[in-house]
Amino acid sequence: MEFKISRELITQIEQLISENNEKELHDLLMEMHYADIAEIMGELDDSDAIYIFHILDSEKTAEILLELDEEVREKILRELSPKEIAEELDELSTDDAADIIAELPAEMKEEVISEIQDVEHAKDIVDLLRYDEDTAGGLMGKELVKVNENWNVLTCVKEMREQAVNVQRVHSIYVVDDENRLKGRLSLKDLLTTSTKTPISEVYIRKVDFVKVNTPDVEVARIMQRYDLEAIPVIDELGRLVGRITIDDIVDVIKEEADKDYQLAAGISQDVEADDSILELTRARLPWLVLALLGGFVTVKVLGFFEAAMETNKELFYFTPLIAAMAGNVGVQSSAIIVQGLANNTISGSLWRRLIKEVGLSLLNSSILAVILILGSHFLLGVTYDLGLTVSISLISVIVIASLIGTFVPILLNKIGIDPALATGPFITTSNDICGILIYFSIAKAILGF
Amino acid sequence: MEFKISRELITQIEQLISENNEKELHDLLMEMHYADIAEIMGELDDSDAIYIFHILDSEKTAEILLELDEEVREKILRELSPKEIAEELDELSTDDAADIIAELPAEMKEEVISEIQDVEHAKDIVDLLRYDEDTAGGLMGKELVKVNENWNVLTCVKEMREQAVNVQRVHSIYVVDDENRLKGRLSLKDLLTTSTKTPISEVYIRKVDFVKVNTPDVEVARIMQRYDLEAIPVIDELGRLVGRITIDDIVDVIKEEADKDYQLAAGISQDVEADDSILELTRARLPWLVLALLGGFVTVKVLGFFEAAMETNKELFYFTPLIAAMAGNVGVQSSAIIVQGLANNTISGSLWRRLIKEVGLSLLNSSILAVILILGSHFLLGVTYDLGLTVSISLISVIVIASLIGTFVPILLNKIGIDPALATGPFITTSNDICGILIYFSIAKAILGF
Repeated sequence: MEFKISRELITQIEQLISENNEKELHDLLMEMHYADIAEIMGELDDSDAIYIFHILDSEKTAEILLELDEEVREKILRELSPKEIAEELDELSTDDAADIIAELPAEMKEEVISEIQDVEHAKDIVDLLRYDEDTAGGLMGKELVKVNENWNVLTCVKEMREQAVNVQRVHSIYVVDDENRLKGRLSLKDLLTTSTKTPISEVYIRKVDFVKVNTPDVEVARIMQRYDLEAIPVIDELGRLVGRITIDDIVDVIKEEADKDYQLAAGISQDVEADDSILELTRARLPWLVLALLGGFVTVKVLGFFEAAMETNKELFYFTPLIAAMAGNVGVQSSAIIVQGLANNTISGSLWRRLIKEVGLSLLNSSILAVILILGSHFLLGVTYDLGLTVSISLISVIVIASLIGTFVPILLNKIGIDPALATGPFITTSNDICGILIYFSIAKAILGF
Repeated sequence: MEFKISRELITQIEQLISENNEKELHDLLMEMHYADIAEIMGELDDSDAIYIFHILDSEKTAEILLELDEEVREKILRELSPKEIAEELDELSTDDAADIIAELPAEMKEEVISEIQDVEHAKDIVDLLRYDEDTAGGLMGKELVKVNENWNVLTCVKEMREQAVNVQRVHSIYVVDDENRLKGRLSLKDLLTTSTKTPISEVYIRKVDFVKVNTPDVEVARIMQRYDLEAIPVIDELGRLVGRITIDDIVDVIKEEADKDYQLAAGISQDVEADDSILELTRARLPWLVLALLGGFVTVKVLGFFEAAMETNKELFYFTPLIAAMAGNVGVQSSAIIVQGLANNTISGSLWRRLIKEVGLSLLNSSILAVILILGSHFLLGVTYDLGLTVSISLISVIVIASLIGTFVPILLNKIGIDPALATGPFITTSNDICGILIYFSIAKAILGF
């Protein structure tokens, strides 16, 4: 049942636009989900995208606006008056509306806010704009259902009905005191099954998970995942209930965080997509390539030190890419496991135990690889027994060292507060290339004596 | 507010266990969240973990069981009788209970199921065991609230109250016909605000997203993310409503999928964690290292072809690790962007346009790098002008080719139905190493003529 946008559909829509056939286009689009319409708009020319936007009603367009790619949204917003934008925002929940306002040019912001019809809604949005987007405050919405601990069940049900009008989905009912301080929560079920005269203070659950406005978003994600929460209340410095975060916002945080780690591991330092401009892609990719190039300079220098081997053991040089590749691969494997373990909080035990384990693991792996290397270099590559043995002994040392670097660099980075994901990418491969080649030639020199 | 397990806490708990101080231990643990207790149990000796499990009531232990690491859970389950396990399952939702039963040894399964007190619950669990764990059927639970399209609002509210007793959180109310076929959904709000005599058929929404029992889990995740759904109904081959999937299960799928892609990119072919055994880690890591080693053999052979250069241009060999590293890094960057684009469905436009873009991007990047290389090789490395130019021209060619391989191998794999994430790891670095070195020496030979 997943929707796939076909070339035919796009052509059909372009055709309808060029025919100015508003009615048929409207009927066609009204059948679709807003996420699908947003994707279609991304495929159309700007003027066609704007055409579509104008023939739909604001209930639909508001949701579409949210789903659009940032560049497309920017173009659409530029075509709308402050009043029109405000109409869209009136349809959205406070957190989504605040996100859109945050993207507007400074001079537009105030104008748009002043055009929002619902004053309470506008106040809530303005309130949300204060928070950093990477914190609980930046994620939360103001739509929630709360009751006072001094009320009884009947008052609650009445109040809740009123509040629920503004809330799309009731996740939890929060209980506050007269100062709006979060005291606990109430289950809808308990509320429905308790006598209407019962005071709330007798039925509510005093244990409630919460986050503070300045809790980082990844921390919120971790807490909600760990404790299987579908929503979590947000409190301010004084313990007052100021908003709630729902799991669908967290899904985006988790996805973004995973994408970021994946890109970092591949040597891409900013959040980019395949469809971004060449300049944006270059900005994200080039710094890492420069790092790798500079690391390459070092390997050139290192190899130069061992020039003497050219005369006596030139085949040693044929094996440098092999050694470098093994060092790089082992390092990336080790660091990926540690980075994930740190992210998922599944690393236990002392550093000392981890060291012993990593050495054991890399000795096991490298010994098997050394056997393959000895056999392969003899039967496939036809090098001398001495050389084969030299390369194999070096391979074992290189792998052990590479896996130790791969394991402990992320742990160290994490300790000093740097994102350990930085270490899985070109940083590890480059430093392991250098170390690997240095170790390899040093061992070769010791054994072969050139 | 996130919980961190301290060494002191573990020591305190071990102390209480050795003193057999059940009461204090019970009080201490009852204050904690089950996810935290599960983590603590993972840190304790087996006998201590089992001790803790026995002093808590089954409402708490059932949830703990779910959160435990698989190995710890296995150990605990081995200590429990079928009747005791059944008591735990009685506390769990059907999908969670089915997951635990699936882990039991075959001979235990039936015994445990026969001990489950609630017959309906047992039937539901048995029903769920039929489905593959990577499909919607394997993810779904049977707890849902459904109403018949022929009822009126009053009947609905009454029926719903009864059904809701078994359902932890009401996400949606589904509407079915007499044959249990999914017809639509009902919002709680509409139900509460409509006159009790209104027939359901007048108020329900006929448009409802759904998945089939055999839809793959990652597809379900994509749909729920795309359409911002907190729950989705699951239908069988005949369109009958058989279960529902909630967003918290999907969060796990998204997390696992991202972790898997990340590991594949790092050359780890199975889902492993830092705390897994050395043997498991070797199984996941060694195959990729063997692949890289075999690739290394090819590079040795390739370098052997250009032996003649040893006499006249030995410095060429100093640059091989640099060229290989650049080819590998560029390839991984390109493929990571494509793999993510394919996963997130954000790749648009024709292959032809992508080709032109990738060539443009890599020409831009490589030209900048070539300038740095020419300057660096002259001023830092002191090689001849001829050699510097040769390496730079090779670098540009190598980067362009590497980025094309990185871009089109994942697209090709995806077309023929293989997970493109496979291509980001050692597979790309190894093939790019080989291609890079071959291109480099071929160009050098053409220019320098050895």
